[in-house]
Amino acid sequence: MKELVIGFLGCGNVGGGVWKLLEGFEKELAQRANLKIRVKKVLVRNVNKARTCSVPQSLLTTCPEDVLCDPEITLVAEFMGGEQPATEYMLRALKSGKTVVTANKMALALNWHRLHEAARHGRAGLYYEASVCGAIPVIDVLSGPMQSNRISSIMGIINGTTNYILSRMYEQGEDYAAVLADAQKLGLAEPDPSSDVEGMDAAYKLSIMASLAFHTRVPFKQVYREGITGVTQEDIAWGKELGYVMKLLAVAKREGDTVEVRVHPTFLPKEHPLSRVHDSFNAVYLSGHACKEMMLQGRGAGDLPTASAIVGDIMRAGNATEHFFPDSAFLAEPDVSLQFTRNWNTRFFVRMSAVDAPGTLEKIAGCLARENVSIATMVQRDAPVDGRLTLVLITHSAPEMSVQAALAAMPKAVCQVQSVIRTEG
Amino acid sequence: MKELVIGFLGCGNVGGGVWKLLEGFEKELAQRANLKIRVKKVLVRNVNKARTCSVPQSLLTTCPEDVLCDPEITLVAEFMGGEQPATEYMLRALKSGKTVVTANKMALALNWHRLHEAARHGRAGLYYEASVCGAIPVIDVLSGPMQSNRISSIMGIINGTTNYILSRMYEQGEDYAAVLADAQKLGLAEPDPSSDVEGMDAAYKLSIMASLAFHTRVPFKQVYREGITGVTQEDIAWGKELGYVMKLLAVAKREGDTVEVRVHPTFLPKEHPLSRVHDSFNAVYLSGHACKEMMLQGRGAGDLPTASAIVGDIMRAGNATEHFFPDSAFLAEPDVSLQFTRNWNTRFFVRMSAVDAPGTLEKIAGCLARENVSIATMVQRDAPVDGRLTLVLITHSAPEMSVQAALAAMPKAVCQVQSVIRTEG
Repeated sequence: MKELVIGFLGCGNVGGGVWKLLEGFEKELAQRANLKIRVKKVLVRNVNKARTCSVPQSLLTTCPEDVLCDPEITLVAEFMGGEQPATEYMLRALKSGKTVVTANKMALALNWHRLHEAARHGRAGLYYEASVCGAIPVIDVLSGPMQSNRISSIMGIINGTTNYILSRMYEQGEDYAAVLADAQKLGLAEPDPSSDVEGMDAAYKLSIMASLAFHTRVPFKQVYREGITGVTQEDIAWGKELGYVMKLLAVAKREGDTVEVRVHPTFLPKEHPLSRVHDSFNAVYLSGHACKEMMLQGRGAGDLPTASAIVGDIMRAGNATEHFFPDSAFLAEPDVSLQFTRNWNTRFFVRMSAVDAPGTLEKIAGCLARENVSIATMVQRDAPVDGRLTLVLITHSAPEMSVQAALAAMPKAVCQVQSVIRTEG
Repeated sequence: MKELVIGFLGCGNVGGGVWKLLEGFEKELAQRANLKIRVKKVLVRNVNKARTCSVPQSLLTTCPEDVLCDPEITLVAEFMGGEQPATEYMLRALKSGKTVVTANKMALALNWHRLHEAARHGRAGLYYEASVCGAIPVIDVLSGPMQSNRISSIMGIINGTTNYILSRMYEQGEDYAAVLADAQKLGLAEPDPSSDVEGMDAAYKLSIMASLAFHTRVPFKQVYREGITGVTQEDIAWGKELGYVMKLLAVAKREGDTVEVRVHPTFLPKEHPLSRVHDSFNAVYLSGHACKEMMLQGRGAGDLPTASAIVGDIMRAGNATEHFFPDSAFLAEPDVSLQFTRNWNTRFFVRMSAVDAPGTLEKIAGCLARENVSIATMVQRDAPVDGRLTLVLITHSAPEMSVQAALAAMPKAVCQVQSVIRTEG
């Protein structure tokens, strides 16, 4: 049996979950992986803080060198979060030949090629299943079984906080601010929720998934991003009426050498498999030229689900005899032939407040027609308020820029655009 | 770049799909896996038969030794189907050190330990992602990321033919025989559909999945099996009315050392994620102590989806430096401490034809009460035919044997049991 000596960087919620999962799992580790795992050192900010897990005080240290410079430690598990100092610590570990297992999507997305290059340089492994969607093995599936596919599209509900908020807004008719406050009380949203509700968290994960799926680095800065802070109950209710469910969707598509990567509130038809992914569940829907449609669904966060991914990586890393990286996904620069576009084609939901007078519809329709945007569905209610009425339309598939140009051209006196929501599925 | 020389055993629908997928995939194989794949020989029954793929006539042979005894061929891909001679050929290949990639659930389920033992003996790899659920990477996920879990339950819709038939019966109100005939016309059911509709196909797959999930061999013969040939539109309609969808469900549960493995028509609440898996789609729903609930859903059959799994395995095998099998899942005998039970607990749907007379309900309820079976839901319609009426009940969770004993004790003159359907979810 092989003894694997590991060090933790961090011991908060995720680290505590890993400690709990490893405790009492000795028999399984021996049977399944021929491994005995010993945690030798645990880097923390404060050794005297109360912890939910039973890690002995004697293992705790505030000195990173105790983990990074101990030659007996061959695997470093990182769950500090944040870009720095986590990235620096991981780079040091990898360069010195220590394998790294991380849950840190931000550090990984922002330093993708540097971390992979350090791993190659140190002939060490870099494992990051836990960085995307907790227990859902999407990194494993993209890196392994899906290698036989040209993946054309990934659509994911990859942020549990926003999915919880949007699910409640859809199901209970509540307003954004009220649900957010409640989610914070329940621990489902952070006190500062901006990374989740502004789509940063989802964009980090999308950058990682798209790089693996498209076999070329998809830098975080290429991800177009719109959060859910501007989502209104009015739009959700209109969507519901028209058969759509709103999700904060992460979308990556590749057609030939053109790639689009984007995170934004999205209407999905209520029959779409992703529409049924409720509450804080996550799901990733893939399309490949051989596998066709596939969906992975499960727990995207939480201490034990995240620990499930980390311990799975530790078990795999513990038996890897060699780490193999031929793929250009890990190079610093995206494939030069690749074009990142922001002029994607999709169907658009548009809600407007328009003057209740002859000629209004003609003007609106004219602006759309001049940009060659065609209307699929339109609803106008005969209930004007202050001489203005609400007009909702859904276009046929059209280029983003044409739709934006058409809406910008609409005369403000006649018509004010209140929301534009992209649709998929 | 490494050249991998492979031989095919069989070249029907699946083999043709693999050929098509490898054609034109050279660039990706080089970039992603540093591999050049050359198919050297293809074993077929008839070299003159017309084929859907463009495999050159010069590669075809009817002599298995041309594949099995060629020292240049280091990987054998098997898609002949059937237990023999496929098993013998795979055993010979493995023992002589050739890695085997197979789509053959029957050969694998029936000869699980022999094939794994031969692989260990020959220090060769045995890969079988394609044997369960086509493109859905359930073997990969169970063998890899889920190693960090104690899996307590697997529920799967793992046979596309029966799911297609049951979906149409549910959605269109059609009868079993009519839908089966139509599925045969559409190529979605075999001319002899027995392996699918009698649950054999699902039972093979369940034996494989359960062995991996529970880390001990779960022999095929332990799988309790009931097909869909006795399913009536009447039961499906009753289920629909009560909020249930019927699926041919494969269920494996482990609690402590007690294991149940079973394939049978099952009512699922219509809100359950598996209830929404329609048509010929497959899905596997797992529960583990760390990952919690997870579902994988996609294409369980078809030439390209199956080829997706096979080529994924070939790419992985082509770069494996060592094949690692410490797990007792691959031993000949199940763990001696393990008990396979047929006395599982579940809720039962029971449809009866009962005499419309005073005392009937008392007698029925009495039989159930004596076995300590409690009723959750009961519907009796005031529309007797020939003095008998239909009575439908759903029990609370109760042991199989208690329910069967209660039903056997019901006096035939008063009440005839017409169907008993287990529920899950």
